Amino acid sequence: MGTKGEGNRQRIIDAADNLFYRRGYNQTSFQDISDATGIPRGNFYYYFKTKDEILNAVVNSRITGLSVILNQCEAATDDARERLLLFSNMLEYRRDDVIESGCPIGSLSTELAKDDSDLREVSRQAFVLLRDWLKVQFASLGLPNADDLAMDLLAKLQGVTVMACAFKDVEFVNRSHREIKEWINAKTLN
Amino acid sequence: MGTKGEGNRQRIIDAADNLFYRRGYNQTSFQDISDATGIPRGNFYYYFKTKDEILNAVVNSRITGLSVILNQCEAATDDARERLLLFSNMLEYRRDDVIESGCPIGSLSTELAKDDSDLREVSRQAFVLLRDWLKVQFASLGLPNADDLAMDLLAKLQGVTVMACAFKDVEFVNRSHREIKEWINAKTLN
Repeated sequence: MGTKGEGNRQRIIDAADNLFYRRGYNQTSFQDISDATGIPRGNFYYYFKTKDEILNAVVNSRITGLSVILNQCEAATDDARERLLLFSNMLEYRRDDVIESGCPIGSLSTELAKDDSDLREVSRQAFVLLRDWLKVQFASLGLPNADDLAMDLLAKLQGVTVMACAFKDVEFVNRSHREIKEWINAKTLN
Repeated sequence: MGTKGEGNRQRIIDAADNLFYRRGYNQTSFQDISDATGIPRGNFYYYFKTKDEILNAVVNSRITGLSVILNQCEAATDDARERLLLFSNMLEYRRDDVIESGCPIGSLSTELAKDDSDLREVSRQAFVLLRDWLKVQFASLGLPNADDLAMDLLAKLQGVTVMACAFKDVEFVNRSHREIKEWINAKTLN
């Protein structure tokens, strides 16, 4: 695939990523993605044969984006507690998106939980990446229940997101973010 | 509407309720509901003109069901702390459903957050009922931040649900339920 082909492919992925997030996977059609990119549906099938293939590419793209963020947390400090605090800042810098449309990973997972099992498995991959990374951070601080803590932190973030999105409540996000940082400190500071 | 008419109407609501939960609102068609009830689509329009009307009826039906549960919690004990603990048991007796399909209220809210604002408003109503009831319980114990605690408890339950459903993890639900009960006790016992 040439440079133009790669460019078109990425434009399709980016448009689909945004539409899946803002409207939902099942509510997004090939035509919607075609409209958003300006790439005709005819050319479109050259890159992706099915919507499932686009979903795979979108999840991979999100995983790449998350990996960049996790790498930035690692590059910023050697202290795993500080890395966890930096990670929790996602609630702050994605706050408006969270209130408008929920968590891209959580809402996709919730939507596809109601679908067939292949799609479920794909949507879970981004959670697996985060869970593993958080577990490594907690474990590096000598905490024996690192995997439980990783799940707990993800559950806290998801819970805040669901309720903030339901009630469109900025102040709830701000307060919860402070409390999550306190929880991280309580678990990791001796 | 005669008894048979009421019976058909309720059968449509019950079938739609289950389909919205198991497949999602947008993935459920009139035809699906017709298939599930055996009521022909032609007769069907006699009861509901649009899917939005069915959604309204389903949310009202869920609110009625939740009200029964909340009334049972109130009837079981005068102690608000015990009522809150009883309420949290929803995680236990709906555990298999939660793992399979998430929370009916939370997943509908997440799905419809991506839709138009009228549907969002409808889907929020069940959360409003729970938030108000929880607030009353916390307030009756003299806690000044009762509304915050109500939101926090709902967020905890939603977070556990999203992660348990994503990872199909029974043990995570059991552990989280124990920790939520500890949290209720910590907040309400002096």
